[in-house]
Amino acid sequence: MKARVHVMLKNGVLDPQGEAVRHALGSMGFDGVNGVRQGKVIELDLAETDEAEARKTVTDMCEKLLANTVIESYSVELG
Amino acid sequence: MKARVHVMLKNGVLDPQGEAVRHALGSMGFDGVNGVRQGKVIELDLAETDEAEARKTVTDMCEKLLANTVIESYSVELG
Repeated sequence: MKARVHVMLKNGVLDPQGEAVRHALGSMGFDGVNGVRQGKVIELDLAETDEAEARKTVTDMCEKLLANTVIESYSVELG
Repeated sequence: MKARVHVMLKNGVLDPQGEAVRHALGSMGFDGVNGVRQGKVIELDLAETDEAEARKTVTDMCEKLLANTVIESYSVELG
């Protein structure tokens, strides 16, 4: 089973990468970009086939390794 | 209009970040992880409200800045 995890900085946490992208887009002539946030996406190929079990495992992975839950939020998609 | 861009290394391109995550998960006792790929997700808040126009602009941003199309592939989601 495939899982996709999105890890983004929480709202209110300064995102210098996103700001750099926004600034670069502006200087390249792309107007009308109000905000940019950059995060990570992690695609996992799991041996587990049960969806509920996979979600539990991936959530555990996020809490322990993939996200820094002090400043980052995560979401898990399975399929 | 919000846009979300995923940028992933193309298949066949070595992904050392993904490998590091896979190895770390294994050493933490998470078995059954066959593969991990790590990429970027970029969330854009655009002033543009027309979906077709926004898709064209974001694709242009990907080609020119957000992705290195030699080694990375990208996908654009709007909404």
